[in-house]
Amino acid sequence: MTMPPLTAAQVSAPEIAERHRKVREKMEKAGLSAYVSFDPNNVYYLTNFANFVHERPFVLVLTMTETFFVVPVLEVPHVLRHKVGDFRLLSYAEFPAVVGSRWSDRFAEALPKQGTIGIEGACPAYLQAQIPNPVKVLNIIDEVREIKSAHEISRIAWTSDVMTKALAMMLGKVQPGVMVAHAIGDVTPYFYQRCLTESPQYNVMSSHAAGLIQPPAYTDDPHNFSCLTVTCEPGGPFLGFVAGKINGYGAEIERTFFLQTIPEEAKRPFDTMMEMRYKAYDMLKPGAIGSEIDAACQAIAHGAGYETPLHRTGHSFGVTSHEAPFLALGEDNVIQPGMIFSIEPGIYIKGKGGYRHSDTVLMTETGYEILTQYPDRKEDLIVG
Amino acid sequence: MTMPPLTAAQVSAPEIAERHRKVREKMEKAGLSAYVSFDPNNVYYLTNFANFVHERPFVLVLTMTETFFVVPVLEVPHVLRHKVGDFRLLSYAEFPAVVGSRWSDRFAEALPKQGTIGIEGACPAYLQAQIPNPVKVLNIIDEVREIKSAHEISRIAWTSDVMTKALAMMLGKVQPGVMVAHAIGDVTPYFYQRCLTESPQYNVMSSHAAGLIQPPAYTDDPHNFSCLTVTCEPGGPFLGFVAGKINGYGAEIERTFFLQTIPEEAKRPFDTMMEMRYKAYDMLKPGAIGSEIDAACQAIAHGAGYETPLHRTGHSFGVTSHEAPFLALGEDNVIQPGMIFSIEPGIYIKGKGGYRHSDTVLMTETGYEILTQYPDRKEDLIVG
Repeated sequence: MTMPPLTAAQVSAPEIAERHRKVREKMEKAGLSAYVSFDPNNVYYLTNFANFVHERPFVLVLTMTETFFVVPVLEVPHVLRHKVGDFRLLSYAEFPAVVGSRWSDRFAEALPKQGTIGIEGACPAYLQAQIPNPVKVLNIIDEVREIKSAHEISRIAWTSDVMTKALAMMLGKVQPGVMVAHAIGDVTPYFYQRCLTESPQYNVMSSHAAGLIQPPAYTDDPHNFSCLTVTCEPGGPFLGFVAGKINGYGAEIERTFFLQTIPEEAKRPFDTMMEMRYKAYDMLKPGAIGSEIDAACQAIAHGAGYETPLHRTGHSFGVTSHEAPFLALGEDNVIQPGMIFSIEPGIYIKGKGGYRHSDTVLMTETGYEILTQYPDRKEDLIVG
Repeated sequence: MTMPPLTAAQVSAPEIAERHRKVREKMEKAGLSAYVSFDPNNVYYLTNFANFVHERPFVLVLTMTETFFVVPVLEVPHVLRHKVGDFRLLSYAEFPAVVGSRWSDRFAEALPKQGTIGIEGACPAYLQAQIPNPVKVLNIIDEVREIKSAHEISRIAWTSDVMTKALAMMLGKVQPGVMVAHAIGDVTPYFYQRCLTESPQYNVMSSHAAGLIQPPAYTDDPHNFSCLTVTCEPGGPFLGFVAGKINGYGAEIERTFFLQTIPEEAKRPFDTMMEMRYKAYDMLKPGAIGSEIDAACQAIAHGAGYETPLHRTGHSFGVTSHEAPFLALGEDNVIQPGMIFSIEPGIYIKGKGGYRHSDTVLMTETGYEILTQYPDRKEDLIVG
């Protein structure tokens, strides 16, 4: 297998048009006269414009023939600087503004008088309240996003490359006596350096990524990041991770590692985690079912006497670092080429430690390709 | 006037209880049997737990006598580590999970069978769809947040102190030939240093702040941050800003400044901006109306021949860096002691430059107090 090409280049107008076409195909099937998008990830996907959610709404309205983008007047030059593709800007006066020039006045102009309007599951109640038409909640854009284009795959491969090298940098800094904050200190500057030198259209607003190391006492609690002042001492399991999105596209790489020595009691849970990992990769092919992969990993954990893992086997990436579809119980999606998953089955022993690797993995026509190539055997993960 | 004390200390359980009491007071007045909160800022305000929104929902349900917190099982240790106050945790199996152990099953357990349920304007459609009761959209917690307690004021004063010193650091780095990315490079490490040394309960999940410098060609577009590789050259107007929230509480400081020399054509717009600024401070007292302050600032801009400013005069802060109430047309709130506002009237000339200072300002019983004390005259804002 060959790795996909890497790129930090901006999305093209034809690619944006193709995304819109796919959304309208689904709108037609659902019998909608328009679809309203508020989720900033979906807005970015269809416009290349990244906003963060605050009181001034950014709302995209797709009818079958036109695209309207309702934005604060303050943001018009900002939108014009980043946007790709064609749409009609409807700008409203500074929030909250007087009646007649409010965001809701512009939004009303964009809505068709007739027909059912589709809204996202993420659509806020205040926005839904402004739609007089009958409304249907369905995640059309999210569905289109599940299968990645060649451009998206190259962007995710680029993010994966940045993150894999950042992980190597971090792990190279871990020594006895080194504080976590110091070991991770070069990661953010490295992100900037890569973005600024490789992407002329780098947008800081669509980047939100970090590298972190959890010392052993924190690894049983996967989202506990309160260990920045802890000093590294020989042993393990440590968890090194780099995750998030960089310049618009997400990925992650995580490794359980050891400092100078592997404690005896770490070996069995590490090996069980690896057995789950091999099983997940073994089952990972187009046509497989996400929940079945997760069930098989859980069976290995239970068989070895461990509790149900805290974490599912995987999630997807795209313009986010965390999205559907999942490799998890309850998710009966069929895995297809062009999907991207994290593969991260884990073992978590309360008060003793957690064991998890994670990789960013592309589904191909015949199998998969790991975009975050990095050693995974415990013998190769002893640092310091 | 004396500045409020600074603190980076964690909120107390009695303070959290008092916030809950105020919310229930408003629930009772509105005739609700429960109130459902999803907005992560409101959840943080009532629990001290910071989450970011992704597919696994965190939902707070307040009945008149009990508080339920629906959380992913994966996050239970993380919630227990940060939470302040008493509530009943209802944890659900890893997303999406099988029927019976999904988030929606736990959520259903928390809802009262009878009565109208209040939801936030920010409540997503997928959550609203799980409420069988009649629903009323109203922002009760946001309203309680408008008046700050002594603890909140001290936290915002602390954030203001960190940001003011960060601005001074940044401006001290600006020299001819220096790249923006280098001038701002010390800000994030400084944030970390202050948080890690002054707040034993520092939570990286509730921090999202940055410092940036806009060179002259970018200042007419207030949210355009794509200037990291631009080199600073003598002249102006430059805009230096530090904004966001640090360890849970927001503030901002912004200064228009000049490198070595003030261009002749910059003097009139700068002075007009200052006239607007003096007018805003002159009108800023308990009992004043936000829209009237903004109208008076706009009148000065128009009188001097400038277009309607892109930006309103101010917004509030709290557990966010951007919230209601506003000093803006359309906002007819009465200003009260304990409110916090940015004061940031500006002049923006398309293609030529923008002029804006911003400060974080506390309303007192008799007037106001500026929490971000820093020179504002153009003669004192020449660097390099």
